[in-house]
Amino acid sequence: MLDPKSLDVLFREARTHNGFLEKPVSDAQLRELYELLKWGPTTMNTQPMRVVFVRSREAKDKLAPALSAGNLEKTMKAPLVAIVAYDTRFYENLPRLYHNPAAINWYNKPPVAEINGFRNGSLQGAYLIIALRAVGLDCGAMSGFDNAKVDAAFFPDGRLKSNFLINIGYGTGKGLPPRNPRLSFEEVCTIL
Amino acid sequence: MLDPKSLDVLFREARTHNGFLEKPVSDAQLRELYELLKWGPTTMNTQPMRVVFVRSREAKDKLAPALSAGNLEKTMKAPLVAIVAYDTRFYENLPRLYHNPAAINWYNKPPVAEINGFRNGSLQGAYLIIALRAVGLDCGAMSGFDNAKVDAAFFPDGRLKSNFLINIGYGTGKGLPPRNPRLSFEEVCTIL
Repeated sequence: MLDPKSLDVLFREARTHNGFLEKPVSDAQLRELYELLKWGPTTMNTQPMRVVFVRSREAKDKLAPALSAGNLEKTMKAPLVAIVAYDTRFYENLPRLYHNPAAINWYNKPPVAEINGFRNGSLQGAYLIIALRAVGLDCGAMSGFDNAKVDAAFFPDGRLKSNFLINIGYGTGKGLPPRNPRLSFEEVCTIL
Repeated sequence: MLDPKSLDVLFREARTHNGFLEKPVSDAQLRELYELLKWGPTTMNTQPMRVVFVRSREAKDKLAPALSAGNLEKTMKAPLVAIVAYDTRFYENLPRLYHNPAAINWYNKPPVAEINGFRNGSLQGAYLIIALRAVGLDCGAMSGFDNAKVDAAFFPDGRLKSNFLINIGYGTGKGLPPRNPRLSFEEVCTIL
């Protein structure tokens, strides 16, 4: 069991931040982050997630037209924005990622590839959110953007598909709305 | 930054377990688990995940025909199996979960509902995996089963859809294969 303070940082007191301090996030921090999240489990070790960390003005300008009105200003101001995407041909790496060389043949078909890429890419996106908090960063994940526009701008060859975005930095904690309610155990869970 | 031991428990030394001690997992532990994972962020606080914790012999017998050959014996022996599912009509709860009463109208359409239910249900499945480790339990997530059979057996009215399964308990640590390799930072991440 983790200590109470760690549980607070990861779950109980973690918030989705909209405003961030003007304090940069270094490449070394992003590498440290990846060295944690990479261990999260995926189906047959497929690891389909790919991440583009958008930090420069040029790259942010490329992202801007895809953002919803409510997400534009805060994203432009955040030190960093992650485009969480997944590789639609993730199965090409399977021969070196999984001990059974036949595994590639179970995933290199459109519906199976799509479902597994999206499922496992999303799992890894959640590991990324938790790992950000674990290394002392704050974040704000967003689905409010035009996936097709992001894909056209950042992944023109069509191999990668965007999933969701995450603003990253050190949250100011200012202007946070009251916390939205969560469903009860009884509404979500059944024990048989 | 969490202490190194916590990072080991959550990520660096965590393994996908196949064998578990004959030590039960209590209802109180499942509630404690939920009280953590429920705080993980989802799009507009939609929280589409639903979980069936399968513990009794009868419920396990109902699950058995859906399991792949390689997952059958270990799952039957595990103290508990979670069916991680999602509510395809999650949007019906939005008026009480999100501050904007119009939000239900953005999600109550088939393609948007399906994508968001699957994406956010998967994120929540990952929070569940991390929370299991955080409360001192071990787990083994699995995609090797017939989703349609699980849905027919456990969700006959069609409202919930199964996503993946997680064996839960206290891992013996016996017979764990060498760890599968992870992709490098350069293969997964780009900084622009």
